[in-house]
Amino acid sequence: MDKASKVADLAQRRGFYWPSWEIYGGVAGFYDLGPLGKELKNKIIELWKETLMKPLQRIIVELETPIITPYKVLEASGHVENFTDPITECKKCGRKYRADHLIEEKLGIKVEGLSPEDLTKIIRENNIRCPVCGGELSDVKPFLLLFQTQIGPYEGDKGFIRPETAQGAFVNFKRVYQYFREKLPFGIAQIGRVGRNEISPRQGLLRLREFTIAEIEFFFDPENPGKPPLDYDAKIRLLPWELAKQGQKEPVEVTIREALEKGWIINEWMAYWMLKAKELLNKLGIKDEDQYFEEKSPEERAHYSSQTYDQLVRTERYGWMEVSGHAYRGDYDLSRHIKYSGKDLYAFRKYKEPKIVKVKVVKFNPKEIGIRYKSKAKEIMEKLRKMDPEEVERQLQEKGYVEVDGEKIEKGLVWVEEREEKVTGERFVPHVVEPSFGVERLLYVTLEHALREKEGRLVLSLPRRLAPIQAVVLPLLEEEPLIKKAQEVWELLAKRFRVEYDERGSIGRRYARWDEVGVPAAITIDFQTLEDNTVTVRDRDTWKQVRVKIEDLPRVLEEFLEGKELEEIAGSQA
Amino acid sequence: MDKASKVADLAQRRGFYWPSWEIYGGVAGFYDLGPLGKELKNKIIELWKETLMKPLQRIIVELETPIITPYKVLEASGHVENFTDPITECKKCGRKYRADHLIEEKLGIKVEGLSPEDLTKIIRENNIRCPVCGGELSDVKPFLLLFQTQIGPYEGDKGFIRPETAQGAFVNFKRVYQYFREKLPFGIAQIGRVGRNEISPRQGLLRLREFTIAEIEFFFDPENPGKPPLDYDAKIRLLPWELAKQGQKEPVEVTIREALEKGWIINEWMAYWMLKAKELLNKLGIKDEDQYFEEKSPEERAHYSSQTYDQLVRTERYGWMEVSGHAYRGDYDLSRHIKYSGKDLYAFRKYKEPKIVKVKVVKFNPKEIGIRYKSKAKEIMEKLRKMDPEEVERQLQEKGYVEVDGEKIEKGLVWVEEREEKVTGERFVPHVVEPSFGVERLLYVTLEHALREKEGRLVLSLPRRLAPIQAVVLPLLEEEPLIKKAQEVWELLAKRFRVEYDERGSIGRRYARWDEVGVPAAITIDFQTLEDNTVTVRDRDTWKQVRVKIEDLPRVLEEFLEGKELEEIAGSQA
Repeated sequence: MDKASKVADLAQRRGFYWPSWEIYGGVAGFYDLGPLGKELKNKIIELWKETLMKPLQRIIVELETPIITPYKVLEASGHVENFTDPITECKKCGRKYRADHLIEEKLGIKVEGLSPEDLTKIIRENNIRCPVCGGELSDVKPFLLLFQTQIGPYEGDKGFIRPETAQGAFVNFKRVYQYFREKLPFGIAQIGRVGRNEISPRQGLLRLREFTIAEIEFFFDPENPGKPPLDYDAKIRLLPWELAKQGQKEPVEVTIREALEKGWIINEWMAYWMLKAKELLNKLGIKDEDQYFEEKSPEERAHYSSQTYDQLVRTERYGWMEVSGHAYRGDYDLSRHIKYSGKDLYAFRKYKEPKIVKVKVVKFNPKEIGIRYKSKAKEIMEKLRKMDPEEVERQLQEKGYVEVDGEKIEKGLVWVEEREEKVTGERFVPHVVEPSFGVERLLYVTLEHALREKEGRLVLSLPRRLAPIQAVVLPLLEEEPLIKKAQEVWELLAKRFRVEYDERGSIGRRYARWDEVGVPAAITIDFQTLEDNTVTVRDRDTWKQVRVKIEDLPRVLEEFLEGKELEEIAGSQA
Repeated sequence: MDKASKVADLAQRRGFYWPSWEIYGGVAGFYDLGPLGKELKNKIIELWKETLMKPLQRIIVELETPIITPYKVLEASGHVENFTDPITECKKCGRKYRADHLIEEKLGIKVEGLSPEDLTKIIRENNIRCPVCGGELSDVKPFLLLFQTQIGPYEGDKGFIRPETAQGAFVNFKRVYQYFREKLPFGIAQIGRVGRNEISPRQGLLRLREFTIAEIEFFFDPENPGKPPLDYDAKIRLLPWELAKQGQKEPVEVTIREALEKGWIINEWMAYWMLKAKELLNKLGIKDEDQYFEEKSPEERAHYSSQTYDQLVRTERYGWMEVSGHAYRGDYDLSRHIKYSGKDLYAFRKYKEPKIVKVKVVKFNPKEIGIRYKSKAKEIMEKLRKMDPEEVERQLQEKGYVEVDGEKIEKGLVWVEEREEKVTGERFVPHVVEPSFGVERLLYVTLEHALREKEGRLVLSLPRRLAPIQAVVLPLLEEEPLIKKAQEVWELLAKRFRVEYDERGSIGRRYARWDEVGVPAAITIDFQTLEDNTVTVRDRDTWKQVRVKIEDLPRVLEEFLEGKELEEIAGSQA
């Protein structure tokens, strides 16, 4: 069994995760999280918040926006047009395939980003046929990866399940800008479910049709982005596209300063979030040498991005696996929503000193207009006031009048004046960088990197603070006085910790049972306990034990979970 | 402005919640949670877990299952057939209405639970017409409240957005039963988004098309349900259907014991969860007199339930509003999934003593069958072994042979024997009670009940531990030494708390600004601070202040948030 199989087997056997709707034969691309998997995920999300939100708590807020999203929002975002995969159908058996994957499997070449026409050509030239029945394949077409639905009882009201949480942040830019009393930069975090209707998902927990994203849309003024609290000397492993396109396969390790100076990372906030992402992965138990950032080529990038790095983690079966994406989305999304909604999603940039500028304004003679146009006068004047002065000037010059509601307002009744105005600043569309994490992928790599074998047994060496169950209380034997004492100890600890209790089977088997699901501390109640109220505490990873007074247990457990070693804590008791 | 308007106004102005996709004109039934609303919701969920999961942590686990659900799962659950609202369409203008609501508004009568035919009759007899254009209304039809979608590229693969999280728990019964090493009772908690495609939702945050449910499916053996840790003397306010159908309008206050004895609550676990629900609402700041439980009439109950209580909370504009439902689902769901999936979702009940029972078994003569049927013999014997002995006996009696795969196996080659067997137990379908909370409704009633006016200003008197922002640090004036000191104090507190900082405006206006969003403690840095390192801490609700040393602030704030009064804490400092 390779590691992926071991993880999957453990996950199903012990309650981390399993395929959804098993009793109905399952559906590809959906997984359930079981009791331990859900708890682990909760802790990963907690750690994510602690690492990505808390250090900037004054400028990062969390929102929650709906999963069901109206058509026009995802039309504006470009998803309706661009969020597709190429699909081809067997003309004989009707099976459908992702065309690029099929070609990659058959020919061993990379074709990501090619057009449907190019893919069709490759299929024809290489005579690629249905891998199941050998039938002829159809022309390649784009397949929309959005799950579609209808909102309410009217058939025209189309909606989708969102493919990312980001759009919920963009459409709310103005609200949050006001929440922050119109100051930039700030970030909107969202953690929530998204759906991507993959054509034929495989790879278990790593390619799902529904999963949880944790992402931040970070808005800033491109002319004055603000300084992230960035450690310029910190090292980061990168494979920039500039090197990759020259054939380089391995990442280079550079300082943040260097990466910025060379232009490999185009923005300081990008660098900040990438460094945080590395830190998060470290906390999940992924070593530096098991992760790096790879820049996507222009063809591979999403439609909205001008630079994207993927954070990759080493996996045994699947190779380097993307767990987060870091995209410079620029002003793409806000500009699109301004265009599609007609609403003001601008920020305001104050000049250091007010500028005196000449502005043109439309003026008119209200009395004369009143006399001449009577009941229509009011509306005409309102429309004149709203007209572009340049346009008014042009019409007056060309035609000698301005046309409003079919009326010709003559020169003299309306004119354009220039006047000086003090302008304190200007509107602009903020830029955005986005760190975006696939939470189930984080869960998977955390499990794979934690799973070890020791003396032929599985031990899940999760970072202690991530452990779904923090301790287990074990009476040495299934005998009354020991059981009673063990129950008391359980009660004591259960107030503050998530603690299991287990009396079934030999003590060795019980240790093994709880090592396997990553319980950091096993607390054994033995006959000495009945005499002196001490218990043994056993470390999941070293299998070493120390004796501790029951009354000290909560403190010992807390310090142990925070990262101290048992010997150290027990030694400090004296 | 009534209270609902004040809450809505505050919510939009200060960032609790607002209608989704405002810039595109919004869509009824969808709301976004802003920075403060999301944080408050997170805290309500935390409290929910603490109240409903933690006390039974050894038997309650949390799962996460997908929102997108295949057709057959919701067909089995009965939703495809039953989860509908009656709809009628104007034949002239095409507008669609919820028929029962329309009738209730026009005639002031309750028609919940009536069939489409009955509703059509009422519309015809009372000549109810389109309220907008006066057109004739169509016959009433059921409208499916499930959001529909398609999973994957094949058109037949229909799916839905789940209307409740419960089915994800039922289909996983066996997995979790094994996780608990085949012991009952246990509960599966889920907190997640659901969708209900309401015909025309109104009432803001109280009737959404997408919202968060927090629910527990609690499985037990109906013959041996186990004892919940239930306070039988605890009081609960109830309006049982038995009283309501006699015309009683007001709830009665009874002890849990009485409610159980009178049969008003049909199950102890139901009573346990109802009491927990009351406790949760108390923690959210809802007083006893502002909540009670109302039993649904048989007509109003969902299709799966044999008893349901709604937990109602008093609201100013909307009257008594349902915030949780407590349904006795019996064996309905598991039985349906057994039937539709053909899979074993039984639990096993051990007899106290093994029973000796007579069982019939099918026997046959393998040698003779081998000789007679040669290559088909093996399959015939396998099929005989699996046949129901009663059926074999019947065929032998009626026809003198047993028919297998078109072959007639004669009496003598096959027969039925009776033998004694020791049976250690029996299979059964567990029963389920379900407490189910609408989280956004909890959020709304929490806000409405917290909002007060004091000296003409709004104060959001949230229970302190629920406050999205726990403290705000205020330099008395916008002057350098005060600002510097205030920043230091902020840094000190931000390590452990969610703290705001504010230097803009008069101190009185700043107090008002943060009172309004429920910040329990305002910490002011004044000139005395510069001399003796003390600050004032002001209580949001009493507006009283105490002076505290900066070094004591973290402890003072922690105790204050836990519920102690400032005078008490400051007094204990000496």
